[in-house]
Amino acid sequence: MKILGIDPGYAILGYGVVEKIGNKFKVCDYGAITTDAGTPMTERLEYLYDSLREIIEEHHPDVASIEELFFNTNAKTAILVGQARGVAILACVKGGLEIEEYTPLQIKQALVGYGRADKKQVQIMVKTILNLKEIPKPDDTADALAAAICHGHSADTRKMLREIKLK
Amino acid sequence: MKILGIDPGYAILGYGVVEKIGNKFKVCDYGAITTDAGTPMTERLEYLYDSLREIIEEHHPDVASIEELFFNTNAKTAILVGQARGVAILACVKGGLEIEEYTPLQIKQALVGYGRADKKQVQIMVKTILNLKEIPKPDDTADALAAAICHGHSADTRKMLREIKLK
Repeated sequence: MKILGIDPGYAILGYGVVEKIGNKFKVCDYGAITTDAGTPMTERLEYLYDSLREIIEEHHPDVASIEELFFNTNAKTAILVGQARGVAILACVKGGLEIEEYTPLQIKQALVGYGRADKKQVQIMVKTILNLKEIPKPDDTADALAAAICHGHSADTRKMLREIKLK
Repeated sequence: MKILGIDPGYAILGYGVVEKIGNKFKVCDYGAITTDAGTPMTERLEYLYDSLREIIEEHHPDVASIEELFFNTNAKTAILVGQARGVAILACVKGGLEIEEYTPLQIKQALVGYGRADKKQVQIMVKTILNLKEIPKPDDTADALAAAICHGHSADTRKMLREIKLK
């Protein structure tokens, strides 16, 4: 199973592609799609969409794992990030991917074992699980890889729970 | 100039296509794209995008006029509406349209003459300007037509202001 992890944002959108083989993870690609503050939002959204479509085209992941957003900031920021999240979801749907969403708490739980783990602990687990030399930068990239690993750990359980519900 | 007005939302997205010929408006099409609450958000976003692309394909508008969103509600709702707004903008960009954004205040100002006009006054102006028999329903459709008319009234002024800025 190949998983595309996404940490959505309009200035920086983190992504990471990992493959789960048995109980191990193999990292395929990771990075950040960035857009400039001086560029009109319409162009920034198109660039995010096109770039994600290219990444999907290159790696053919089966499923996207996207972090759910929570905000204490103002609604204006939430709308802007929502717009970026919308085009990211659309890129995955149009690329034929299943889409799974996880809360930050679920991601921390899956990687570190408890939901109140701090950012650094999650990043160290990403580095360790994927056997990387360094913690991926920027934070958005590490978060995207964390979302991908989270789905790798949680996919079987989620599937089982859904089947129980359907019975 | 053919203008596509959009009032973005994920449950109801209002749209209206009008053509400005001289100082008059001709209405080409209007309606609402609706998605069901029981449908996964990923499918709802794809449906909004595809439906808008079809409307653009059919009418070939030159420019989209989209209402800017303001929220006093919680950030969670803002993210959801932002997602819908993001795919609506992308549909317009991919359809080759210019995109213009107007605040509710600017729209009211353009239609009724003052920014604190109430919803009903705006709707009556939409009906009158477009020579319709009834006020278009739902409200989202009337709002979309109002955004389109607003750009019809404001396009020349905006263009002039931008040219002054560039000098």
